[in-house]
Amino acid sequence: MKILFVVALLGALHPAPPAAGPRHTLMPVPAGLAWGSGRLRLDGRFTAVVHGVPGDARLERGVARFLRRLERTIGVAVGAGTTGLTITVRGKGAAVQGPDEDESYLLDVTDTGATLTAPTTVGALRGLETLLQLVEGDSAGYAVPAVHIADRPRFPWRGLLIDAGRHFQPVETIKRQLDGMAVVKLNVLHWHLSEDQGFRVESRRFPRLQQLGSDGRYYTQEQIREVVAYARDRGIRVVPEFDMPGHSTAWFVAYPEEASSPGPFTIERTFGVFRPAFDPTRESVYRFIDAFIGEMAALFPDPYWHIGGDEVDAAAWKDNPRIRAFMRAHRLADNDALQAYFNRRLSAILTRHRKQMVGWDEILHPGLPTSTVIQSWRGQESLGRGAKEGHLGILSANFYLDHMRTAEFHYLQDPVPAGSLLTAEEARRVLGGEACMWGEHLSPESIDSRIWPRLAAIAERLWSPREVRDVPDMYRRLSVMRGRLEEVGLGSEGHTPRMARQMAGGADPAALAALLSLAEPASLGERARRQALTTLTPLVFAADAARPDPPAQWELRALATAVLARDGGSAEARRVLASRFARWPGLAPALDSLGATAPLARDALPAAQALGRVAAIGTDALEMLGGGPATADWKKERLAQLDSLERPQGLLRLSVIPGVRLLVAGVPVP
Amino acid sequence: MKILFVVALLGALHPAPPAAGPRHTLMPVPAGLAWGSGRLRLDGRFTAVVHGVPGDARLERGVARFLRRLERTIGVAVGAGTTGLTITVRGKGAAVQGPDEDESYLLDVTDTGATLTAPTTVGALRGLETLLQLVEGDSAGYAVPAVHIADRPRFPWRGLLIDAGRHFQPVETIKRQLDGMAVVKLNVLHWHLSEDQGFRVESRRFPRLQQLGSDGRYYTQEQIREVVAYARDRGIRVVPEFDMPGHSTAWFVAYPEEASSPGPFTIERTFGVFRPAFDPTRESVYRFIDAFIGEMAALFPDPYWHIGGDEVDAAAWKDNPRIRAFMRAHRLADNDALQAYFNRRLSAILTRHRKQMVGWDEILHPGLPTSTVIQSWRGQESLGRGAKEGHLGILSANFYLDHMRTAEFHYLQDPVPAGSLLTAEEARRVLGGEACMWGEHLSPESIDSRIWPRLAAIAERLWSPREVRDVPDMYRRLSVMRGRLEEVGLGSEGHTPRMARQMAGGADPAALAALLSLAEPASLGERARRQALTTLTPLVFAADAARPDPPAQWELRALATAVLARDGGSAEARRVLASRFARWPGLAPALDSLGATAPLARDALPAAQALGRVAAIGTDALEMLGGGPATADWKKERLAQLDSLERPQGLLRLSVIPGVRLLVAGVPVP
Repeated sequence: MKILFVVALLGALHPAPPAAGPRHTLMPVPAGLAWGSGRLRLDGRFTAVVHGVPGDARLERGVARFLRRLERTIGVAVGAGTTGLTITVRGKGAAVQGPDEDESYLLDVTDTGATLTAPTTVGALRGLETLLQLVEGDSAGYAVPAVHIADRPRFPWRGLLIDAGRHFQPVETIKRQLDGMAVVKLNVLHWHLSEDQGFRVESRRFPRLQQLGSDGRYYTQEQIREVVAYARDRGIRVVPEFDMPGHSTAWFVAYPEEASSPGPFTIERTFGVFRPAFDPTRESVYRFIDAFIGEMAALFPDPYWHIGGDEVDAAAWKDNPRIRAFMRAHRLADNDALQAYFNRRLSAILTRHRKQMVGWDEILHPGLPTSTVIQSWRGQESLGRGAKEGHLGILSANFYLDHMRTAEFHYLQDPVPAGSLLTAEEARRVLGGEACMWGEHLSPESIDSRIWPRLAAIAERLWSPREVRDVPDMYRRLSVMRGRLEEVGLGSEGHTPRMARQMAGGADPAALAALLSLAEPASLGERARRQALTTLTPLVFAADAARPDPPAQWELRALATAVLARDGGSAEARRVLASRFARWPGLAPALDSLGATAPLARDALPAAQALGRVAAIGTDALEMLGGGPATADWKKERLAQLDSLERPQGLLRLSVIPGVRLLVAGVPVP
Repeated sequence: MKILFVVALLGALHPAPPAAGPRHTLMPVPAGLAWGSGRLRLDGRFTAVVHGVPGDARLERGVARFLRRLERTIGVAVGAGTTGLTITVRGKGAAVQGPDEDESYLLDVTDTGATLTAPTTVGALRGLETLLQLVEGDSAGYAVPAVHIADRPRFPWRGLLIDAGRHFQPVETIKRQLDGMAVVKLNVLHWHLSEDQGFRVESRRFPRLQQLGSDGRYYTQEQIREVVAYARDRGIRVVPEFDMPGHSTAWFVAYPEEASSPGPFTIERTFGVFRPAFDPTRESVYRFIDAFIGEMAALFPDPYWHIGGDEVDAAAWKDNPRIRAFMRAHRLADNDALQAYFNRRLSAILTRHRKQMVGWDEILHPGLPTSTVIQSWRGQESLGRGAKEGHLGILSANFYLDHMRTAEFHYLQDPVPAGSLLTAEEARRVLGGEACMWGEHLSPESIDSRIWPRLAAIAERLWSPREVRDVPDMYRRLSVMRGRLEEVGLGSEGHTPRMARQMAGGADPAALAALLSLAEPASLGERARRQALTTLTPLVFAADAARPDPPAQWELRALATAVLARDGGSAEARRVLASRFARWPGLAPALDSLGATAPLARDALPAAQALGRVAAIGTDALEMLGGGPATADWKKERLAQLDSLERPQGLLRLSVIPGVRLLVAGVPVP
């Protein structure tokens, strides 16, 4: 079984852990862990006893979920026994969770029982996730190794942005992401709820917002409450974003009078930066926003409120003589100054509704209250500037999931990297980070596969100590996390095979599925340049079927690394690679033949053809490594070919090139 | 690509179709079909124009769903163009659909457009499903071949029973089945709502029924209405079953005074036939049932009402002296007579609430009004007896999905088989049939894989002309249906790989998934004898992961048939089989090694070991067929070994044995 070998290899690439004892598969890595001796056996006698604050229904529900998941893992009904886990919680936590919630916990497992102690319910929920991740099988059944864990997050704000504006995401889809977030200890759902392409929340005060601005795809107030409660049950805050003054076309379908240019407006069907923006010069606009926020503030209890504030089209205001006159009258030198004026007005409204303002980099402007949180899509520098000026900040640059980068890439970002020039006080203003799942090319069907499992790597960056940044070990644990995320209902693992079956339309999908397992979608920008998509286009293409950073990416690198190992390399790794390279050229003809009856599958053909060329280079490299002569020119040429083959092929990008490049680079040249 | 060959082979095994023109993948096969010439191209200009009865919102929603599914198939937004489909519907159909609803339709496709004509909305919905199944890809994109179809069902009652009593099935799970049922033109959801293990509907009149009898797992009245409306939108009736007088423990947790034995009662956790039954001698029982049905009749508008009536424990009544006295006083000779008395009382209550009674074979007893419908789990004979006595009837014998039989087995059953002794009038009393999905070993996770795709074969039996019974052609089309059912959200195709990943607990699931793809779950009875399950046991075992009648079953038979073909057999089929036989013995050691860390996976080991022995027999047979000498004894022994290996191995049964048996049987003996 060659696959078994590869899996073993993925583990073996990482050196023995520094601490003695078994190697864990925890993700995120806890702040402190010490192995004990022995194991706590898990069987039908297991139960959980709670010493909490009376009436903590949230904890009770959390423990019940924990028991059901444990049962599924070990195949035995539990909860009615006498031995097992004792949970002690000192307080229920804040009535409305904020970034200052204490999420720490202590977990002690011995061979006779486990104890979990936490200052808050949320801390206990975090500890329960850790305990589930410690369960492992052995020859006697299931058990948890004895261990002492003292854990707490590095950053208090660890979020995921979901853009439900451009493509609506149903409540069930959102709940699934919350379940996954709880598994990796994330604590903020940043819900992007209005966009040029759709206004997604029921307003009872301004019902025409959703009636005219959503194509009927919006969350009812009951659903919002349901999601907020579901999130709170998992120790997750919900921060709403109503983007303004730009990205706001959908508002103006119903309320053209609030816009800075004359209507009528229609819901935007394409993607980009559009001109419609709120008119910051009208008092009616502030009254409208005030009333709207007043209504929404009751729905979204979180102390923070995201106003967006990004990408205002310059022409939106400049083309309006009345607005130009207003700017002159108020000595507002340029659009930035006008937006700063708008933001100050917004800030006052939010303060009145007891909300703290959050916005994107663009809102950072002199005169903005330092209580405002800056979410940076521009980078650490922008974030650092905010912190130095006294602002709280959240990093999102390089955490964009729609950029289709690897888990490794995101993992090695850091909101406060080693060597940061921030003082300790300034660094404390960096609250954490948020991964962003923008919605241009996102469907309820594909969203899981875009977010997961890469988000687990980002979650670890935000929870675990800064020093935890061993990439091979991250991928080793990420591979186990894939199953855990699937267990709570996320569909990322089955996504590509399922879509391949759909695209094949009843014909054999094997070649398509095989190709897609070696490829990833082109990034948002690359795809937008190559395919004219609107919000109405069904997202059923090869780029929707493929996953970012598929397991093959790291696997190929691991195999190449094993072949190149100092002691002569692994012969088995060489054999596995050779057999893959031998198989790849067959995919293009097979896909060509599938394409005769399955036109959608033809999209994958350019990538399959490129894969054949990559295979030839890989085969050559293996031969050279086996003793064949190589020249510097050979190497240079092949590396250049690989660079070219790494560019998008149609709407796909081959994920196996880094591994093959390692091989080529490793060929010795005289 | 060997797999491609096998798929081609599955098609080729079937001789050319009788009608000229392309071979279709329609399921169920329409009553009449004639190919035209040319094809209707499908692209962004396609749209559907409806000439219906004004205000037929059900038809509008059906057409909108059709357009969205078409978009996903062809990868283009449609609905805004000018050419395409014209739908003409003469009437909305009955306000409450009954078995007499006209479901016929005419579909005409030419190279310039399509017309769909139907007397009712339901007929049009059936025709839209047919049209979707006609879409195919070619070198120019997607199209529908020109065709004339005049279609209508053979039987008016084509149902699926879902047992939500023993294991609760959430609303989303039920809706998914309704979506699948619509695809294959089924029209009755028989919803089994109360059992010893649970009472599953909210009663507002008797709220303690669900409060004490459901573990909190029941359908609210709002949810019931939602499901009934969802079903109606798809031309599907919902017939509720509240089983009585037996199978009723869960009622008595709240209302012990209605039982024939003294309480208290608790929700039953195990499976079987249990003693608690309604007490047919008390007037209070009939008042209770009358009030209950009065409340429920408003929730379930269908004209039919299922009272169950099966498997009453004899002791339930015999042990009660008061009941024995009542029987003597009323000259009721035995339990059957007492149940007949109970049923007559029920029948009167139902008549008062304008419901027609349906029940299982056991209720068939002299004196029962002939308006009562008999649902036969015992067989055609029992069904025929009812029909001869004037009763309407539905066949369910041999349509039990929990028996884990093949699609072929179910397909060849017939409610009125050729050669039936029923007169034409009696035969008309046989309304159709229902597949039964009993819930002992059923979870929301596994249900799709138990029901589908086999149910498509049963649906064809009930819709298509009696003469349509070509098994190879059925499997050819069923294989295409798998994708279509997945497209509407059913999870059968991804089920086994997903559960294999879960059971492997982070280790490589490949060997487990491979074994499970060649095996099926033991039947309900076989499993019950081997594994002590309660309603609390998590259903996460190999038997839950495997699917009944996996594609490998038919594939192996097809390969064996190709090897044995008269003209010397296919060399390619022989190579494919040989390579499979070579691979199978490796699965047991791989599973053994997986089992070291994944105890749940160990369940599959006996089947893997047996598979190794089957592979040896298969390899031998291929050699003999290649010219090796064989003796009658060799053959007899191998066939006996296969018989023995076909018995359950642990909780699994190997599905590839029929194929290997064909090979062995085909070895010539001097």
